[in-house]
Amino acid sequence: MGRWKPDTSGRLERAAIELYLENGFARTTVPQITERAGVTTRTFFRHFADKRDVLFVGHDELRERVAKTIAAAPPAWSATKAAASGLNIAAAALQSSQDEARDRRSLITATPELRERELIMFAAVAGTISEALIARGVEDRAARAVAEAMVAAFRVAFEYWGEHTERELPQLVDEALDSLKEAFAAVGD
Amino acid sequence: MGRWKPDTSGRLERAAIELYLENGFARTTVPQITERAGVTTRTFFRHFADKRDVLFVGHDELRERVAKTIAAAPPAWSATKAAASGLNIAAAALQSSQDEARDRRSLITATPELRERELIMFAAVAGTISEALIARGVEDRAARAVAEAMVAAFRVAFEYWGEHTERELPQLVDEALDSLKEAFAAVGD
Repeated sequence: MGRWKPDTSGRLERAAIELYLENGFARTTVPQITERAGVTTRTFFRHFADKRDVLFVGHDELRERVAKTIAAAPPAWSATKAAASGLNIAAAALQSSQDEARDRRSLITATPELRERELIMFAAVAGTISEALIARGVEDRAARAVAEAMVAAFRVAFEYWGEHTERELPQLVDEALDSLKEAFAAVGD
Repeated sequence: MGRWKPDTSGRLERAAIELYLENGFARTTVPQITERAGVTTRTFFRHFADKRDVLFVGHDELRERVAKTIAAAPPAWSATKAAASGLNIAAAALQSSQDEARDRRSLITATPELRERELIMFAAVAGTISEALIARGVEDRAARAVAEAMVAAFRVAFEYWGEHTERELPQLVDEALDSLKEAFAAVGD
């Protein structure tokens, strides 16, 4: 622990994750979080909608970076290559803060209501990637299928990474995409 | 409307869907549903956990049929072919009760809390397919990636089908799988 971020939002996030890990998500209250972070409850709710929200902060920003990366990919790139360039940004960002990301992951895995929130978050990521692909001229349905499938590959890699600290997330994402390439080559045979 | 099913569960389901379509999901109460179906509230809760649950009845059974179909597929079939055989069963079942399935779909699309429940249901389907593939000897991570990606393709087809009454769901699922085959062929290029 003790990886303080200087800003209020980061302090609240660390305090919350520490308490969730120490006492469990269900038994942790917002006043406990704000006491540890040294801020008021009102401050908490200026930054987060609820105590679930703390674990998903940063995802909206990351999602925007993914969208921008896909938009900036060379026009000649395939849908999967453009989408993969976006996912690689996300994978690299998570890898660079791997201890925090893994702490969050283990909390989410252990808590059904957080797993639901994570599903919704991943659905939003797929929606963002799909829109970015459509903007690149990919046909609507193909864009949605590719976006959902790529995010599915990312999730599988992400879950595996949570339990295999020796592995690097970007590499695991590539492996998941390769396994889909191999598997889908057999469609229609 | 008026497509009564003879059994109590089916009567409750039809009554609920009629009321949800007439008055909206949020404004419909369980007593209104049981009054229309001519049963007691206690009977409702013998069949369903809550009023969301009504719209997802039958999915557990369909999920079991998908799993059995995959288990029964010839050992020589590829992971995608085995999984597709399972999804085709689900697509055919939904196609055969298309009016009801589309009513449910439009209700779910219009209601955020139902969309969340649908995400959880699809995640459960992916989990079931993944287990069925692992039982066939497919490597763990590949099985999960393929299962999630195939369910993603199914969802895209399913959503499109909800708005395109002239199309058949099994055909749309095949098209979505073909689009993934084509897209993923470019991975790593």
